[in-house]
Amino acid sequence: MITALCGGVGAAKMLRALSMVIDEKDLTGIVNVGDDLVMHGLKICPDLDTITYTLAGLDNTETGWGLAGETWRVMAELGALGGENWFSLGDRDLATHLYRTQRLQHGATLTEITAELATHHGVGVTLLPSSLEEIATRFSTPEGTSLSFQEYFVKHHHSVVVDGISFRGAETARPGPGVIDAINDAERIVICPSNPLISIDPILAIPGIREALITRRDDVVAVSPLIGGKALKGPADRLMAELGHDVSNKGIAALYAPLAATLLIDFSDGDDAADVIDEGIDCFVTNTIMDTPERSQMVAMAVLSA
Amino acid sequence: MITALCGGVGAAKMLRALSMVIDEKDLTGIVNVGDDLVMHGLKICPDLDTITYTLAGLDNTETGWGLAGETWRVMAELGALGGENWFSLGDRDLATHLYRTQRLQHGATLTEITAELATHHGVGVTLLPSSLEEIATRFSTPEGTSLSFQEYFVKHHHSVVVDGISFRGAETARPGPGVIDAINDAERIVICPSNPLISIDPILAIPGIREALITRRDDVVAVSPLIGGKALKGPADRLMAELGHDVSNKGIAALYAPLAATLLIDFSDGDDAADVIDEGIDCFVTNTIMDTPERSQMVAMAVLSA
Repeated sequence: MITALCGGVGAAKMLRALSMVIDEKDLTGIVNVGDDLVMHGLKICPDLDTITYTLAGLDNTETGWGLAGETWRVMAELGALGGENWFSLGDRDLATHLYRTQRLQHGATLTEITAELATHHGVGVTLLPSSLEEIATRFSTPEGTSLSFQEYFVKHHHSVVVDGISFRGAETARPGPGVIDAINDAERIVICPSNPLISIDPILAIPGIREALITRRDDVVAVSPLIGGKALKGPADRLMAELGHDVSNKGIAALYAPLAATLLIDFSDGDDAADVIDEGIDCFVTNTIMDTPERSQMVAMAVLSA
Repeated sequence: MITALCGGVGAAKMLRALSMVIDEKDLTGIVNVGDDLVMHGLKICPDLDTITYTLAGLDNTETGWGLAGETWRVMAELGALGGENWFSLGDRDLATHLYRTQRLQHGATLTEITAELATHHGVGVTLLPSSLEEIATRFSTPEGTSLSFQEYFVKHHHSVVVDGISFRGAETARPGPGVIDAINDAERIVICPSNPLISIDPILAIPGIREALITRRDDVVAVSPLIGGKALKGPADRLMAELGHDVSNKGIAALYAPLAATLLIDFSDGDDAADVIDEGIDCFVTNTIMDTPERSQMVAMAVLSA
């Protein structure tokens, strides 16, 4: 049994890679809900959906985001109405949000709904929302404004200077159903190559989760999201710099050393190994890029054997 | 200035007919909200939308319902997910509900949003929600069940026996902004050929509205929704029978006599005139079918001259 801490795209690739080398029934993802939002009255869970869609093979490989075969009629009409359409929701994707919102209103939990959607899409990996309570990642800026995750990420394309990140609601939230068991019972726990500050931290901020990981530290392996000091996708590098972290594998190592025994870094960053070890975490130098099935399997094998 | 009490399809035709003979800026519709619902988290106002779409010329004349050029991608995907899709929402229509729901969450009132949508669609008629408070038309059955409007109307295609209708929330609701003024200030008030029991009654059930109409009784004209004892559309005839009303223009006259001076009935029902007058309301025998522009204008002229 393998349990992974997950953000969105990087985690989706990691879970897909792991499912190539072990039975997906033996895989559990604990998924960040700090990006979740209610828009137009609809409950939207970007990380859960990205992972479900990717594992279902529905990810759009041409655009690198969104669903394969997606259409945009509703958003086009909403734009014509003068409605807020900066957060693009495809017609096919909208069906997921309508389904989830209706099921929530009928009393189902997000954990149950996530399982229903996974089953519908033929996804065998167990995906667990990190919490059923509302956790909202917020960004503060030097100008004193506070942005929601999606305002920062989508509306402003993460091109705003940030001087603080908070996870509203996290301090009183409880881990979602199955989350602590999935950590306690796993043979190995993987911290996916997701953004440590806005994908992994909002999971760790839920009381009980960090503590459970620390207990299992010997079996925790983190995969660095940086290669050559850059994130493959998203603003991890920029945010780390703005918030005073070393924008390197050394900086990643400092973040994860308290709760992970091993950090996987990319071959091209082999020179960082000594710095990583200095932070008190073992270093495993391997391939970390999951751009082909073969290279993905390499990462998965490294995670399992590290 | 003409003010009309409105349900959905029949009222949309009446307002369109009136706008052919007077400036639409001089027309106000007070629109039933008892059919409104929240589905999939979205606020849906069937009567307001039917009227807006019809006046905008967006009604689908081929099917007789829904929007012209509508597509159904989201519903098809929702159905595939196993979601509730008995209440069909087209992609184009969904944009309206997303817009409305988002604007409500941002603090706009339904009156303001209705005006925004009308302006966007180039509709000059003023459409006023009968109330900003929630009013829910409910149907009780001899088996003791209670159905929402849309469960009765759409899910069960109004083929269930009903022994009572109630308007939950109406007794404590207040008339929406502008509603009482629109009654007080109108030269003529029209009760559209909508279903009296489920389109007009939930408007009249809001304290203050019936009283205002009674004060203006001399200027109130009702258009019968029955021709030959049958409703052109919907279950008005069936519901009237089940709830003990005379299923005829006499029955309509009995319902409206306290608040309307005149009832318009169709040429083909000319024999009903004496029965109507017996109920204490004047009878105007004319065309009431609005199936062509010419015949629609005839009805509008009759309403204005009655």
